[in-house]
Amino acid sequence: MESTILIPEIRELLVQNDTSALKELFESEHPVRIAEWLAEFEPEEIRQIFSLLPPYHQASILVNFDKDLQVKVVMTLNRQEASRLFTAMPHDDRADLFKLLSEEEQEELLPSLAHAEREDIRRLASYPEGSTGSVMTSDYMALPPNITAEEALNRMRREAPDKETIYYAYVIDEDRKLLGFLSLKDLILANPKKKIEDIMHREVIFSRVTDDQEETARKIQKYNLIAIPVVNGNNALVGIVTHDDALDIITQETTEDMEKFMAITGSHESSAYLKTSPLEHFKNRGVWVFILAILGLISGMIVQRYENLLSQFAVLVTFMPMLAAAGGNTGSQSATLIVRALALKEITPKDVLKILFKECQVALLLGILLGGMAFGRVLLQGGTMTIPNGYSLSLIGLAIAIALALQVLTSTLFGAILPIIAAKMKWDPAVVASPSLATIVDITGLLIYFNTASYILGI
Amino acid sequence: MESTILIPEIRELLVQNDTSALKELFESEHPVRIAEWLAEFEPEEIRQIFSLLPPYHQASILVNFDKDLQVKVVMTLNRQEASRLFTAMPHDDRADLFKLLSEEEQEELLPSLAHAEREDIRRLASYPEGSTGSVMTSDYMALPPNITAEEALNRMRREAPDKETIYYAYVIDEDRKLLGFLSLKDLILANPKKKIEDIMHREVIFSRVTDDQEETARKIQKYNLIAIPVVNGNNALVGIVTHDDALDIITQETTEDMEKFMAITGSHESSAYLKTSPLEHFKNRGVWVFILAILGLISGMIVQRYENLLSQFAVLVTFMPMLAAAGGNTGSQSATLIVRALALKEITPKDVLKILFKECQVALLLGILLGGMAFGRVLLQGGTMTIPNGYSLSLIGLAIAIALALQVLTSTLFGAILPIIAAKMKWDPAVVASPSLATIVDITGLLIYFNTASYILGI
Repeated sequence: MESTILIPEIRELLVQNDTSALKELFESEHPVRIAEWLAEFEPEEIRQIFSLLPPYHQASILVNFDKDLQVKVVMTLNRQEASRLFTAMPHDDRADLFKLLSEEEQEELLPSLAHAEREDIRRLASYPEGSTGSVMTSDYMALPPNITAEEALNRMRREAPDKETIYYAYVIDEDRKLLGFLSLKDLILANPKKKIEDIMHREVIFSRVTDDQEETARKIQKYNLIAIPVVNGNNALVGIVTHDDALDIITQETTEDMEKFMAITGSHESSAYLKTSPLEHFKNRGVWVFILAILGLISGMIVQRYENLLSQFAVLVTFMPMLAAAGGNTGSQSATLIVRALALKEITPKDVLKILFKECQVALLLGILLGGMAFGRVLLQGGTMTIPNGYSLSLIGLAIAIALALQVLTSTLFGAILPIIAAKMKWDPAVVASPSLATIVDITGLLIYFNTASYILGI
Repeated sequence: MESTILIPEIRELLVQNDTSALKELFESEHPVRIAEWLAEFEPEEIRQIFSLLPPYHQASILVNFDKDLQVKVVMTLNRQEASRLFTAMPHDDRADLFKLLSEEEQEELLPSLAHAEREDIRRLASYPEGSTGSVMTSDYMALPPNITAEEALNRMRREAPDKETIYYAYVIDEDRKLLGFLSLKDLILANPKKKIEDIMHREVIFSRVTDDQEETARKIQKYNLIAIPVVNGNNALVGIVTHDDALDIITQETTEDMEKFMAITGSHESSAYLKTSPLEHFKNRGVWVFILAILGLISGMIVQRYENLLSQFAVLVTFMPMLAAAGGNTGSQSATLIVRALALKEITPKDVLKILFKECQVALLLGILLGGMAFGRVLLQGGTMTIPNGYSLSLIGLAIAIALALQVLTSTLFGAILPIIAAKMKWDPAVVASPSLATIVDITGLLIYFNTASYILGI
């Protein structure tokens, strides 16, 4: 990153206490970039720099630090500095930060905040993790229905500096019930004398505080919104979720989905790869590695039970890795497609019959492909194999091919049906996906393989 | 979906030719919802409905159809209807649609379009798939530096209906070089008499037409932008990418990443799960299933080579499924973490030493866990095993435990290093991830296993 060049310079300026040069440097730069530089400094140094900047500027830098650093920096501030910073922060970010402070720190901070701020933080911090309430912000623009477009525009001018977005304004009645919305574009294009209620759109796409955060993010995506209004149980407007939060939610959720797919536990909300300690990484990964190893041992016991069959037909051992690969791969393929299609709302659990019919067809084609491969391989390389008397190469080939095709069919259908069942039960479909799936179809696959072979070979 | 109730009603109104009821129904609804309903109708019926609506409304519904249906609907229109619709469409969507038309259809459409539209479509359609140029739109708001805020606002009022977003305006010189930008918020807050060049922000975050589309989307995410300006090789402003496109790009890229992870080929740009035919699904999945099955056969041949060792120590077969599971799982875990961390720019290939050091520590912990499990299992269940004379249970347990720990170490490091090498070579890191990785570490794992066991047992 180019920013690394600047860090020694900033440190130099700090030592020389050259406040005007520091101010100038920080005024012209984007807060996201400044946050990248400052992340390399000690909290005490950051405090020193913050003391040169107005609170709104401190706030816009602070929210771009990761959560750990945000807490550390706030801890260096005195009560007055902290309360000024909290007052200037976006409402959603400050509620998130507040939740990370210890109870004593919270108690110390609250009295120095104004009543409105205190109530706002308490309310936003009260929604459960993962709900729309927990990611919304309360600094939105609300308008009454009976003022004119010109009055609305003037009001927006007055209130704009405090609002997260003024590109959408929400029209509410005395009980804060959502009546409609209009964009700043509507407002500047409207006849200035027209009433808001005659300009506003009455069909509003909205979310509820209790909705899952991902559902709300997907709504923002589907309807290409800059922000979505959020209502509480009484249908009163209590907040908005903005487009940038939607992007972060979707990124976080897909990362977590992928990690579930790869049997990694733990939330990745704020912990980046390099910042997570080896022990933490071990904990996140070890749980599933351990569980899957136990399932691997069960597979091993199945193999052990068929020791007799295997000692007569050593060729069966040769195809075990291919069997495991085929089951695991076809199962995770169908699971991945179904989990993604469910997440993107391309399908719902109601489509289960259509899905199974389609997967059956795909699995048959894949089964024929792999079965054919195995049959061909047995015939071609048969000369080098030790075969008991009275058995033909083609019979052995057929047994392996049929067992393989059955394995592909069951694992594909397993892969398709498990996420649907999970979705139906309101679990997260990703948890049932590979590699837990791969290990389960390993076990069923070995049973299918050995039983089919025994049956066809008549042992 | 609630929309299914409405479809028979719409059809009824169509049969009765009740145009006023249809118009009323479509005027009050969100184009995204209307598109969901109409997706159930025949292209000819959609044409009939479109003929009741003004072109801008047709356009805002059309862009929410999937690409196939967009083409089908356009094919039912006559030349005049098509050219009106194209003129009303967002510039990026119409260039995308144009690319999907056959050469004859393109030739037929172009002459009926105005010169400016023709040039715009040709230019936007010329950028390679996946580049920022291919996803940008050209209907942005540009301003000269020397007009006042008031003049700028009036200009925006005039031009707003044609622009994708008027929330950001870009300030350019006579050569279209990007001088700065300002938001509509800046503009309505500014003193109306002030010059644009005195209000605008001079530090602009921008992209280049040749940049990868995901890189641009990540910039929009990082800086919380509503839109990002895009410049060509001469640093002239040629388009913008908006926040909703960024969301779609990131969703599409992560879906493709996940599918690569699960060895599914083919792009998912417009093809939803249910719309893809079984044969197409087979093609997307069969390629890798086939390749991985061949690798599985190679594993099988390795097993065959050690037939002698296995016949003496049948217990070694029992641990083969656990070995395969351990290698595959630990390898895909580290690969997943590294691929995601690379995609989210948490790490770069330069961090390779830090990453390998961290992964070594994690792998050692995982190796001790699994090795310990295997050792314990051999000791506990030793009574049921057939062991050649002169070998102690603990020696066999030790051989298996060490082999397993080595397998975990190599597969974890493989999983970490392969995506980094891919990133360094400018390939997509996701292609080297599981299950190709799982199959490769299967092969290396078997070699490690058999060689370690042979060495320790002295065979």
